[in-house]
Amino acid sequence: MTGTVRIGVAGLGTVGASLIELLARHETTITARAGQRLVVTAVSARDRSRDRGIDLSGMTWFDDARDLATAGNVDVVVELMGGSEGPARDLVTNALKNGRPVVTANKALLAEHGNELGVLAEEHGVALGYEAAVAGGIPIIKALKEGLAGNDIQRVYGILNGTCNFILSEMRSTGRDFADVLAEAQALGYAEADPTFDVEGIDAAHKLALLSAIAFGQQVDFSRVTVEGISTISPIDIAYADEFGFRLKLLGVAERIGDTVTERVHPFLVSLDDPISKVEGVNNAVVVEGDFVGRTVLEGPGAGGGATASAVASDLIDVATGRFSPVFGIPASALRARQDGGSDEPHGRFYISLKVEDRPGVIADLAAVLRDHAISIESLLQRGKPEGGTAPIVVICHDAPESRVLAALKQIEGMDCILQNPHMIRIKDL
Amino acid sequence: MTGTVRIGVAGLGTVGASLIELLARHETTITARAGQRLVVTAVSARDRSRDRGIDLSGMTWFDDARDLATAGNVDVVVELMGGSEGPARDLVTNALKNGRPVVTANKALLAEHGNELGVLAEEHGVALGYEAAVAGGIPIIKALKEGLAGNDIQRVYGILNGTCNFILSEMRSTGRDFADVLAEAQALGYAEADPTFDVEGIDAAHKLALLSAIAFGQQVDFSRVTVEGISTISPIDIAYADEFGFRLKLLGVAERIGDTVTERVHPFLVSLDDPISKVEGVNNAVVVEGDFVGRTVLEGPGAGGGATASAVASDLIDVATGRFSPVFGIPASALRARQDGGSDEPHGRFYISLKVEDRPGVIADLAAVLRDHAISIESLLQRGKPEGGTAPIVVICHDAPESRVLAALKQIEGMDCILQNPHMIRIKDL
Repeated sequence: MTGTVRIGVAGLGTVGASLIELLARHETTITARAGQRLVVTAVSARDRSRDRGIDLSGMTWFDDARDLATAGNVDVVVELMGGSEGPARDLVTNALKNGRPVVTANKALLAEHGNELGVLAEEHGVALGYEAAVAGGIPIIKALKEGLAGNDIQRVYGILNGTCNFILSEMRSTGRDFADVLAEAQALGYAEADPTFDVEGIDAAHKLALLSAIAFGQQVDFSRVTVEGISTISPIDIAYADEFGFRLKLLGVAERIGDTVTERVHPFLVSLDDPISKVEGVNNAVVVEGDFVGRTVLEGPGAGGGATASAVASDLIDVATGRFSPVFGIPASALRARQDGGSDEPHGRFYISLKVEDRPGVIADLAAVLRDHAISIESLLQRGKPEGGTAPIVVICHDAPESRVLAALKQIEGMDCILQNPHMIRIKDL
Repeated sequence: MTGTVRIGVAGLGTVGASLIELLARHETTITARAGQRLVVTAVSARDRSRDRGIDLSGMTWFDDARDLATAGNVDVVVELMGGSEGPARDLVTNALKNGRPVVTANKALLAEHGNELGVLAEEHGVALGYEAAVAGGIPIIKALKEGLAGNDIQRVYGILNGTCNFILSEMRSTGRDFADVLAEAQALGYAEADPTFDVEGIDAAHKLALLSAIAFGQQVDFSRVTVEGISTISPIDIAYADEFGFRLKLLGVAERIGDTVTERVHPFLVSLDDPISKVEGVNNAVVVEGDFVGRTVLEGPGAGGGATASAVASDLIDVATGRFSPVFGIPASALRARQDGGSDEPHGRFYISLKVEDRPGVIADLAAVLRDHAISIESLLQRGKPEGGTAPIVVICHDAPESRVLAALKQIEGMDCILQNPHMIRIKDL
């Protein structure tokens, strides 16, 4: 006889509605895969009267999502409200305390409170699934926690925010500027009314913090992720990137450098040899580099109701079969605290664009500053006769430690000939 | 207190040696991830005296691998011998009968006997893991069985044989012919002395049969996979593919067409819009199209000791944690028998190259045959003045059912003007 897993869903936006549709449409196959029936028995959302195009009959309505943590007809809680505090945090915390497995798509909650929630889940011996929190439908959490668990991971990086990737793809294909394309993305529903979390890299940083915790067996520490977004990217940077054989992408990169793990989100110029350079539009892609497996790439839809519901359903099936691993792959007690940075630091090639006065000696002065910081110039481009006496210059430096480049840029900013502060973009070589 | 899982490894080639190295090097992290120590306690291989560069001290040697099925100091059997019959089959069968979990990289064994082995594993409530059997280190079995389990899969396809992909990549970049590049692949260790399984598509077909069983919830039936290899591919086909904006790839494609599932391995011209068109060299890539998730791509090393050992280790960790799913994702009793083909059949665009006499009326005759089979010509290329009065012609047809194209080709083969039988290659559109 087949048992039933009773699911309480908090949040009925596009993901919640897609999940209910998915579970209904695939009832037979999911029962076969899960070994039990998965039935949504309770729901909660802000507005009870809204027509979501799904049949909510037979489901108990809760005005306060937090009640799902203790509701009598719920075995598993699905949290799709979002937000790192407030009702979402209360619901997840109380459900776990109540010995109730939780499946969530909430990257902010886990990036901020993942350690304590992981301990709670472990103490109560229940699953806390969050496949849907990172890279939408791509099963990257499972791949890192289980599929690639035999490896020592050197680096995990990727395109983790579909909104930014859409904007950068559009800027490149149309030559339009950031603000213009952002407005289009908002009109298309790819960007929120307040786009800060996406375009300033915070959303990608939340996801990166989770990937990094799993890959490197360390506690989540979102506050230590360096975060830079794409709002300062200009069409000219994208055009130059093209010219030098790169694609400009917002990447989250977590890597072992010496004894420490560095986590950062920046716009990067990605070499065309890197498979993720070709990932366009709202897609996400994650690259995992393991010592035995080599380089593995997972690509797919990074957002959207269907893809995210697919990830939630996969976690629910795991819960139903009793097949789950610790929240970050190893027991919470074994996760290392984040190390302070050692003497090693990120290094690489760098792209620098600046506007300078068009007069003799300017390039000599710039080159001297770079030389004084032991930074070697790989390419330098100054083209044509600019209007109004200003000359845009683009420099690509050979591999150098980031701190030296930043010091050189600081000095350049103070030079008289500089009409617009230099814009530095990191180059992501394979 | 941490328990110990005692592992018996049958087969100490590059994968077996890599696995022993992996388990030794990552003992601490794997113990944390598995919740138990994974220790190789017994091994078996053909030649005891060979130096494999690994420390076998403390491991019991068995001359007959089949003894690992019942050996007293073994909890889990890892089968890395290969071959669908003989000792590998005996060992896996007897281990399962003995209630012992099995992890294998043996695609031939599972493609031929997966149904009965799946039933055995289920009867005895133990895992039969084969992540390493398909696409090397890419965790595609786990992704299909678990990570994308919420979806109805419409199609799964990919580059499943690294040897063929290497050969095709080399043929393209150097213009050399098949035999020449095959010899190089053999010298590099990318191809076996007898390359039949790889270059004739059999290895890819084994893997496809496994992916298809999981994706479509049906019994494995290798005998129903249509198999074509790459030995008939000429440099001119690859050059024309380039010219028309395609890459030539050996693909395994399993898809739902009407009520039935079609499984086939063929060389395909892949549109450059398809992410797997850019997968070069020995890499593998698998595309999964699900109704909720959309299109997901997993890419990585398809072979090699390290990548395959990574996949074996992941299965072993799952075994240690007790985290496993039925062999093909759903209980063996629920797997559907393969349906006979319905009235629907594969269709698509086709590339046809042929050599004809260079005289008036030939193209008119050819075009008439295609017209008579209701096949519409999209592009036709006849270039320059050929030497010796023969004219190579390339035709690309609009979307048409495969049977109509095959019938037309049969008629064309009988025409007087044909100097060399037409060579047809399927086009894989997105």
